[in-house]
Amino acid sequence: MSSSIQSASTPLKAPDSSHLQLNSQGQLRHFLTTEGLSKALLTDIMDVTESFSSVADKAIKKVPLLRGKTIVNLFFENSTRTRTTFDLAAKRLSADVINLNIATSAATKGESILDTIRNLEAMQADMFVIRHAASGAAHFIASHVAPHVSVINAGDGQHAHPTQAMLDMFTIRQVKKDFSQLKVAIIGDILHSRVARSQIHALKTLGAKEIRVIAPKTLLPSTPSALGVTAYTDLADGLDDVDVVIMLRLQRERMSGALLPSESEYFNCFGLTEKKLARAKTDVIVMHPGPINRGIEMDAAVADGPHSVILQQVTNGIATRMAIMALTLGQHPSSKAL
Amino acid sequence: MSSSIQSASTPLKAPDSSHLQLNSQGQLRHFLTTEGLSKALLTDIMDVTESFSSVADKAIKKVPLLRGKTIVNLFFENSTRTRTTFDLAAKRLSADVINLNIATSAATKGESILDTIRNLEAMQADMFVIRHAASGAAHFIASHVAPHVSVINAGDGQHAHPTQAMLDMFTIRQVKKDFSQLKVAIIGDILHSRVARSQIHALKTLGAKEIRVIAPKTLLPSTPSALGVTAYTDLADGLDDVDVVIMLRLQRERMSGALLPSESEYFNCFGLTEKKLARAKTDVIVMHPGPINRGIEMDAAVADGPHSVILQQVTNGIATRMAIMALTLGQHPSSKAL
Amino acid sequence: MSSSIQSASTPLKAPDSSHLQLNSQGQLRHFLTTEGLSKALLTDIMDVTESFSSVADKAIKKVPLLRGKTIVNLFFENSTRTRTTFDLAAKRLSADVINLNIATSAATKGESILDTIRNLEAMQADMFVIRHAASGAAHFIASHVAPHVSVINAGDGQHAHPTQAMLDMFTIRQVKKDFSQLKVAIIGDILHSRVARSQIHALKTLGAKEIRVIAPKTLLPSTPSALGVTAYTDLADGLDDVDVVIMLRLQRERMSGALLPSESEYFNCFGLTEKKLARAKTDVIVMHPGPINRGIEMDAAVADGPHSVILQQVTNGIATRMAIMALTLGQHPSSKAL
Repeated sequence: MSSSIQSASTPLKAPDSSHLQLNSQGQLRHFLTTEGLSKALLTDIMDVTESFSSVADKAIKKVPLLRGKTIVNLFFENSTRTRTTFDLAAKRLSADVINLNIATSAATKGESILDTIRNLEAMQADMFVIRHAASGAAHFIASHVAPHVSVINAGDGQHAHPTQAMLDMFTIRQVKKDFSQLKVAIIGDILHSRVARSQIHALKTLGAKEIRVIAPKTLLPSTPSALGVTAYTDLADGLDDVDVVIMLRLQRERMSGALLPSESEYFNCFGLTEKKLARAKTDVIVMHPGPINRGIEMDAAVADGPHSVILQQVTNGIATRMAIMALTLGQHPSSKAL
Repeated sequence: MSSSIQSASTPLKAPDSSHLQLNSQGQLRHFLTTEGLSKALLTDIMDVTESFSSVADKAIKKVPLLRGKTIVNLFFENSTRTRTTFDLAAKRLSADVINLNIATSAATKGESILDTIRNLEAMQADMFVIRHAASGAAHFIASHVAPHVSVINAGDGQHAHPTQAMLDMFTIRQVKKDFSQLKVAIIGDILHSRVARSQIHALKTLGAKEIRVIAPKTLLPSTPSALGVTAYTDLADGLDDVDVVIMLRLQRERMSGALLPSESEYFNCFGLTEKKLARAKTDVIVMHPGPINRGIEMDAAVADGPHSVILQQVTNGIATRMAIMALTLGQHPSSKAL
Repeated sequence: MSSSIQSASTPLKAPDSSHLQLNSQGQLRHFLTTEGLSKALLTDIMDVTESFSSVADKAIKKVPLLRGKTIVNLFFENSTRTRTTFDLAAKRLSADVINLNIATSAATKGESILDTIRNLEAMQADMFVIRHAASGAAHFIASHVAPHVSVINAGDGQHAHPTQAMLDMFTIRQVKKDFSQLKVAIIGDILHSRVARSQIHALKTLGAKEIRVIAPKTLLPSTPSALGVTAYTDLADGLDDVDVVIMLRLQRERMSGALLPSESEYFNCFGLTEKKLARAKTDVIVMHPGPINRGIEMDAAVADGPHSVILQQVTNGIATRMAIMALTLGQHPSSKAL
């Protein structure tokens, strides 16, 4: 199957998914990328997320919105953590969940990715949650599924991780209310990060005042202005007066290449400490998609400190995924009793 | 455990399971083989399958027929695809499902197969769905379970794969209505195929007019007449005027032995193409249990062409397994509200 | 994480968990060890177990007591068998279950055990069922979880396996009614057994008349009297006039060390046969936590014989785990309709 989606696998070349994501009424059908979605739609996702947030506080955390629906977590790249959040979100919507780790199953019999999809569709699957190491995989699948099936991108190569971006946006909105005055800094391996790319698109659409990216030169995109962001190679400068700091997870395999110095040198230059954070606004929030490498991306005092909203992000991750699952399947909870 | 079921592992020597499958009222209790079951019973399974087919079209695809029942998928041989169909069927009947891949669990502690069964029974399992590389495994287990427990054979060695056969029969009935005028050709490794064996028994019981098996000499049973079928070694002759073509999956490991020439030579002689299919009736249907080896058993034009009902088979696989699960557990849906 | 709980990993040094297990009203909040719990509380667990036992006999074996609750089976040590019992117990209480085998997931990304816990808590997990090779692991986690979260110890190193002990106590009570006149012999590797330790604490609290431990000298605790038990190195003497015999599972890896002779020699000296069992009371019951090594701990005639209650233990294991799950989550069924 690698050949069939190879055309989309070049880093930084995102396929244009916007026309695929909406149905003829302009409603969300697939969720593949934050790029190209309207401010109204992103805001609706956050509003629905908010309604599901309150579900989590109830004694019984389940709603019957997706009862009888079959959701297939189709993970071509292993990620227990992300899969667990989709699994939980689906169960709290009362859906049936099938978890398939494709690396160890059908692929070993030489079945192509499209045959797998066709077969699961024939079993009346209603939704595929796709995780794949190749950029464009979810887009490729979405462009081939049957009319009644929705696709959610749970991370594709270096392209997009839109559910992560939306839980981040929701968390920012919970704390800061309004995006229009916000200065946001994203720190880490911007060049290879699907998370950063999805965040930048969402922040721009939601009207953030300023978006900065901070990284060593080797990990910055070549033309940051094309993305609508300002690049910094100095952490202190980049942090000056910001409202939101988003740390990215450092992939340790970058260390063995020529792109990065040692872990300790990286931490010295780009690792977040309480002291360095003093350059930001006093009410700055610090975010991280997890899992944190303590002592590399940030020290424990920041990760567990008063500015951190990292666990709040995790909590919001469930409600965000519930919202996106319900919306793509046409079950807007505003028209139903929760 | 291999020794305890060794007597049943000789290819083509099926254990006589017919007396085991029915309770004293003649109702289905286990489902181990299509051999020896009456036409009325096979027809009832198809009728119940039909009632579950309509469930799949509803907004909520669940029925509460097996709520509170515990179904254990006990797979001694890995098959994600088949396991998923049983998993989905059980969930749509509202049962609780435990998936156990025995190769990687209790067997590693040296627990015997019967100890595993006894323990799961003691945990009030209601049904075992058994997949095993040894012929006779499901039969062996069924002959040892407690009175309240049902066993479904999900494929045992080269013996039987009766749920596959029944979904095939149901698919044929959906399209052709009546079996009595049908000429059916089964193509591929007849000698080693549990699927072919179960199909042949079912087709004979349902009154198919003519059953042909088409294969290289090395993959034909030694006495086809004993099975009530006619053997062909020439594909064109065998396809002449048939209503139904059933392709078998070619096990590539046969290639490395002396039984088969190269893949390309096999395709030349026995691979199905639109051109070769022209010898059959114009409304012929083409079936395959999946997953297809495109370019070996058939070319893509046939697999995805107008005669193919392969994805319809997959859809029917869920409803068929729901029917067999409900019936063996004594929950005939005709007496219940769906 | 090994360092963080190292202080608790010394064999036979149990952490004091008693203050952790109860909330301010004296109700069970975590279930980490049988040590230090009152007779009233252990009796209440058995009473609730009894109420769930009858659930298993109903046509629909489910109760809605934990609907909407999320239970995470967090197994750092693989045990399909034990995990299945907790999985089934949770499903029969209508909870949602997430099975995480940590050896193969987050730990490979270098996430610490506490980060894993924090993240799962943030996803609104209500309960962690912990299995870990290090003594004290469940205690460590329980001392760090959020106020709304309960921890159940499913076996930690050589420390405790309290749900196993409680299902054993319940089984003894089912047959023998009263503990006060009972002589109980535990046979096997007492020194390294978390099962034995938890059984001894429970038996003492419940008032058993006499507790004997029988093993080769190398597998006996150094000061049995400190545990309140009498040590025997001769099987026949130890079995004399006992009401209950509890066999432990022999870890075969002990054989390769200096602690044990060959398997056949062990069986000769400490393996249970019908003949040796004649020294016990005529209505003696024989127990084993499973899976049995037939021909090592006991011969098949005993395992499957009239004195064996081994499968009854398995059945009771589900109801016991249901009881402990419900109680720790504050859902005493006596105040609810089953």
